[in-house]
Amino acid sequence: MKRQKGVVITGKNTLAISNDCPLPDRICSTGALIKPLIWSPCTSDAHLCVTGCESLPYLLGKAVGHEMCGEITQVGEDVHDFQVGDRVIVCSVMPMWRSLEAQDGHAKNRQDNMYAGIDYPDRGGSFVEEYYIRDADMNLAHIPENVTLEQAVMVPDMMCTAFEGVSQLGMEFGSSVAVLGIGPVGLMAVRAAVLNGAGKVFAIGSRKVCYEVAQAYGATHLVDYHKEDYVEQILKDNGGPVDGVILCGGSEKEMNKGLSMLKEGGTLVNLSAYFGGVPIEIDPAVWGFGYGDKTIKGVGCKGGRLWMSRMAELVACGRVEPEKMITHRYHGMDKIPEAMELFLNHDRSLIKPVIYND
Amino acid sequence: MKRQKGVVITGKNTLAISNDCPLPDRICSTGALIKPLIWSPCTSDAHLCVTGCESLPYLLGKAVGHEMCGEITQVGEDVHDFQVGDRVIVCSVMPMWRSLEAQDGHAKNRQDNMYAGIDYPDRGGSFVEEYYIRDADMNLAHIPENVTLEQAVMVPDMMCTAFEGVSQLGMEFGSSVAVLGIGPVGLMAVRAAVLNGAGKVFAIGSRKVCYEVAQAYGATHLVDYHKEDYVEQILKDNGGPVDGVILCGGSEKEMNKGLSMLKEGGTLVNLSAYFGGVPIEIDPAVWGFGYGDKTIKGVGCKGGRLWMSRMAELVACGRVEPEKMITHRYHGMDKIPEAMELFLNHDRSLIKPVIYND
Amino acid sequence: MKRQKGVVITGKNTLAISNDCPLPDRICSTGALIKPLIWSPCTSDAHLCVTGCESLPYLLGKAVGHEMCGEITQVGEDVHDFQVGDRVIVCSVMPMWRSLEAQDGHAKNRQDNMYAGIDYPDRGGSFVEEYYIRDADMNLAHIPENVTLEQAVMVPDMMCTAFEGVSQLGMEFGSSVAVLGIGPVGLMAVRAAVLNGAGKVFAIGSRKVCYEVAQAYGATHLVDYHKEDYVEQILKDNGGPVDGVILCGGSEKEMNKGLSMLKEGGTLVNLSAYFGGVPIEIDPAVWGFGYGDKTIKGVGCKGGRLWMSRMAELVACGRVEPEKMITHRYHGMDKIPEAMELFLNHDRSLIKPVIYND
Amino acid sequence: MKRQKGVVITGKNTLAISNDCPLPDRICSTGALIKPLIWSPCTSDAHLCVTGCESLPYLLGKAVGHEMCGEITQVGEDVHDFQVGDRVIVCSVMPMWRSLEAQDGHAKNRQDNMYAGIDYPDRGGSFVEEYYIRDADMNLAHIPENVTLEQAVMVPDMMCTAFEGVSQLGMEFGSSVAVLGIGPVGLMAVRAAVLNGAGKVFAIGSRKVCYEVAQAYGATHLVDYHKEDYVEQILKDNGGPVDGVILCGGSEKEMNKGLSMLKEGGTLVNLSAYFGGVPIEIDPAVWGFGYGDKTIKGVGCKGGRLWMSRMAELVACGRVEPEKMITHRYHGMDKIPEAMELFLNHDRSLIKPVIYND
Repeated sequence: MKRQKGVVITGKNTLAISNDCPLPDRICSTGALIKPLIWSPCTSDAHLCVTGCESLPYLLGKAVGHEMCGEITQVGEDVHDFQVGDRVIVCSVMPMWRSLEAQDGHAKNRQDNMYAGIDYPDRGGSFVEEYYIRDADMNLAHIPENVTLEQAVMVPDMMCTAFEGVSQLGMEFGSSVAVLGIGPVGLMAVRAAVLNGAGKVFAIGSRKVCYEVAQAYGATHLVDYHKEDYVEQILKDNGGPVDGVILCGGSEKEMNKGLSMLKEGGTLVNLSAYFGGVPIEIDPAVWGFGYGDKTIKGVGCKGGRLWMSRMAELVACGRVEPEKMITHRYHGMDKIPEAMELFLNHDRSLIKPVIYND
Repeated sequence: MKRQKGVVITGKNTLAISNDCPLPDRICSTGALIKPLIWSPCTSDAHLCVTGCESLPYLLGKAVGHEMCGEITQVGEDVHDFQVGDRVIVCSVMPMWRSLEAQDGHAKNRQDNMYAGIDYPDRGGSFVEEYYIRDADMNLAHIPENVTLEQAVMVPDMMCTAFEGVSQLGMEFGSSVAVLGIGPVGLMAVRAAVLNGAGKVFAIGSRKVCYEVAQAYGATHLVDYHKEDYVEQILKDNGGPVDGVILCGGSEKEMNKGLSMLKEGGTLVNLSAYFGGVPIEIDPAVWGFGYGDKTIKGVGCKGGRLWMSRMAELVACGRVEPEKMITHRYHGMDKIPEAMELFLNHDRSLIKPVIYND
Repeated sequence: MKRQKGVVITGKNTLAISNDCPLPDRICSTGALIKPLIWSPCTSDAHLCVTGCESLPYLLGKAVGHEMCGEITQVGEDVHDFQVGDRVIVCSVMPMWRSLEAQDGHAKNRQDNMYAGIDYPDRGGSFVEEYYIRDADMNLAHIPENVTLEQAVMVPDMMCTAFEGVSQLGMEFGSSVAVLGIGPVGLMAVRAAVLNGAGKVFAIGSRKVCYEVAQAYGATHLVDYHKEDYVEQILKDNGGPVDGVILCGGSEKEMNKGLSMLKEGGTLVNLSAYFGGVPIEIDPAVWGFGYGDKTIKGVGCKGGRLWMSRMAELVACGRVEPEKMITHRYHGMDKIPEAMELFLNHDRSLIKPVIYND
Repeated sequence: MKRQKGVVITGKNTLAISNDCPLPDRICSTGALIKPLIWSPCTSDAHLCVTGCESLPYLLGKAVGHEMCGEITQVGEDVHDFQVGDRVIVCSVMPMWRSLEAQDGHAKNRQDNMYAGIDYPDRGGSFVEEYYIRDADMNLAHIPENVTLEQAVMVPDMMCTAFEGVSQLGMEFGSSVAVLGIGPVGLMAVRAAVLNGAGKVFAIGSRKVCYEVAQAYGATHLVDYHKEDYVEQILKDNGGPVDGVILCGGSEKEMNKGLSMLKEGGTLVNLSAYFGGVPIEIDPAVWGFGYGDKTIKGVGCKGGRLWMSRMAELVACGRVEPEKMITHRYHGMDKIPEAMELFLNHDRSLIKPVIYND
């Protein structure tokens, strides 16, 4: 197999540029190769780095990255809707549309995933020179003409995850929503809530840079995560418990905070990942002793061409301005480790970095 | 029974100020009297006038009107959440919350309706000096502090109907929606679609004054209703059939237009009323020959305190600016007939008139 | 206030017949008095007794009981659909239909509850000579002609809870369902699952008497709760994880068992109450690390006349035979303590006892 | 291309055994060839014959048939879950799982359809010696061990259509359902309604043979379609309008009958096909004048391996006995025209015929 350059996790807290990342010799008939034009590292990339890929051990020594847009350099003979030169958004999760799970309405299976193709287990992530995907017609989306690369690269995970999370809330027009954690996914959840009919939106965070974007996205109340009594504050400002809660970060302890501000009959959508091995403890009292009709959903990123196209359409129609979240811009793959450092150092000016491949 | 002043339909195309409208001698324990502060006539009031109350014969000689906000002048002893002096939005339909229909999730029954209370059949509409409603706690809503009377009076029918219609579309983020007819309900449907996650919104109308508001509300495409081939134009601009259609006006013929631009698996929500006695003809070919999974819903205005409060909350949070639709302003009940004339004359500058009671 | 005879919890593990239970002097205009014809004690009555009403301290010294059918002895002047002599099922929870929660589709609020009416806080439960309810038209249901008292008394909690739980699973035809715990609510859940389209139904319990009824209700697999590896057995017999899980009993530990047999994208409905003050611990690994799209719902009993009528209709149409669960029959209120002993002694022959008031 | 024997429509009211039906020379990598073991003709095959394929002109001169089960004789190299010798149910519609429509939750597109594969437009129907399908893993289902061929051949259209229709009703436990037309799809709808929680089920037909099966499937009321006032009878027996209506046959006029017995807020699912070119006329009065919240869905057969497997699972678990509908049994392909004659002659003893291929 051919070799290429990529950003590789080499151990706990260490990553490096490698020239030994695999590049498939041939692509399958429905597949495509994409040359990245822009990348964006994610908290979960940072998590992998910090822990030395503890939660995904097979990724150690392989390329990371799953937020990328690029230009198609090669397509298989059965690809109908994309051609060489097309600018595309690349799916961060890789739904298998020919699966019983997809027929069951849940195409989020992870056999063909963001880091390892089913026909190409060594693939690794998309922080490489050329990235292979197996089902181009189903898992790529064209970048609309009036959408920039910076906007487009916010689609595959930030928008696809947050908008899916909010769509699972089952909101009504005028509902109140609390977003607990306003990093980039939380901020997109704020915008998604507004575009799903929210009235009051409580943005719970701690950093000025995030508050400003939250407000621009339509948050009506900025809440300080570090204040002991923020739940009481929300209950008071809302005139009672909120209709929906989105959990986007924090520890295993936040679940009880979220449940304690949620109305009976309401839904809490969790968008955090729990890799620490610590149990999530639910206090029965805040969960209505088990019969309070509070629903807890642990929701994963939704992928596929249609969902990505719909996200891109929201940007193209001016409904969402995801580029407001981009706080750091770099050029060249060699700068990716520097961008990753922002996460590792908990840089308080960071929301989201992008790296142009030029 | 006491008598009061009101606007009464006296025959085909005739209405008058009457001093003989009934005012209940006593109110029930859950009831309230409201002194109007602002009124707004509706197309359906005009329809009643044109036809001499053909579709609601018992209303002939009685007060019309169902869009009104006012100040409470009296409450029954079992009213808990409202008191004399409160400024309120008055429900245009009067759901009976103690009914099996309400327990079935469909509280839109019309026994206690906008023109005739179940305990007070002669009531008539709300274009009177004092208006009685039977269940204040359930069918009034407070006007939030930062919401104006002009905004508030758009809630009980324009917003309550259009937002309910759009909520019945079952939209996904990024969906395309066509709104067929952009009078005031159609315009509110444009805004509701945007706040329900729409990408492209096609506003199909003919008047400049409406186009302008549609655009301000987020319509992406302004379509000329009088163009023979507007369906083809929409299919082309959308890159295929739309995800949802809202029908807000037009004759029995528009249903086929709507269905012919709708995707298989999509929903058409009808918000028009058909009183002409003419059958609605569906061409099987545009309905997938009966098995194309196109859903047709005939949706009525949703009422009640919660729904109205949620609408008001959207206004209070700055999500909706319904006052943009108000094209004509009057003062004094005596001007209501003049405002009604705008409808009867098909005034092309009219979207929505309001009359202040001062 | 008048006094009457009733079954009262007097302390931890003690209950007694009292002659000092309050009986309202007057009923409200929408209210009714019901003379019990049949009672059934519930596990939760036993729990109250064992703990001396720890979870509901105000009930200590008052009558218990919430499963009862009877004959109307008095109705208020605003009751339209019921009259003296009617045989009725009495709601175990008391939804307030005139509430914002009910308008929000969640009428399960508990201000007017099974043990304490909003206008009559001292009421206590229904193991009394005459029981008062505040809103007869909304919270009573007629017993259909061909439905027996034994069948009818299984409606207000056993059926109303289990069928609501199963309806919240969001099942598809042919879905597989695991019911964890097959006491009377679990058994009704087995039947509800079958009547909601289930294919395979796994009934997880330990007692022969319950297995037999589960099988009669349509369970396809009888699973031994005490076997260490029953989850693996179910996964094997089902050919993978199940589509839905109903949790009806067991400790705070069962949640992880339930989640570990549930498919990604599936729903676990909890019908257990957790009063022990112990947190419910969720192992992230069985919950897809928070993003596996496994939904957890804590569902309470659904009440109201319509829901009870629908349950009774299922019995009347021969779809459900709830009387199969009745293992012990008594006569006279004085026997209620004896029936309660069955629970306290963990009698292995018990599913459900009834006491006729004759 | 090779040629094979098949049953071919040759003109209006004429069909013949042909030896000139195409058989593909090669199958694609995900495809399979199936040798029929049992066939069943459908009303729609008869309709094609009567009209000389008016609605599907390209089928004239080609093999008909879409209800078939058989044995796999060949599989492509990318087929994972099926092998030569497996007994399978063959999908009657052929969803394309790699399509944007499928990503949109509506995989019922008909490009790769029951009579013409996308890669093999001349294929025709399945009344041939060997039938080719393009995506075996996605559109075949194994016949469970304890399911007979007669049961299995009722799955691909009769069960797949009727159960999908009923699932679209959005029923609650205890709902009342009227099935208008109790041919085989209507009868399966009766059973589906029972397995979706129906209380009263009104089976509206005219033939004794159908009534008997309807009753065995759980219909509670047998209604005579030819009686002028059957709608009134149903309203009376049900104590008001029904919760849901399934339309399975009849002319364009039945829609109004169905709507007139449907509650406000209810759903009518249409499972009939309208090929006559005649408009379907809706009387506004029975549709709540357009705002009565009556939903009309035109639902098509749902296909795919998962849905078929779920149907087969219902049979395997004893929930459905579709073989009760089989009134006529034949042996050998040469008998298919004779079986088709039953439809053309409106044989009153016919529900469903099967032909064994032996």
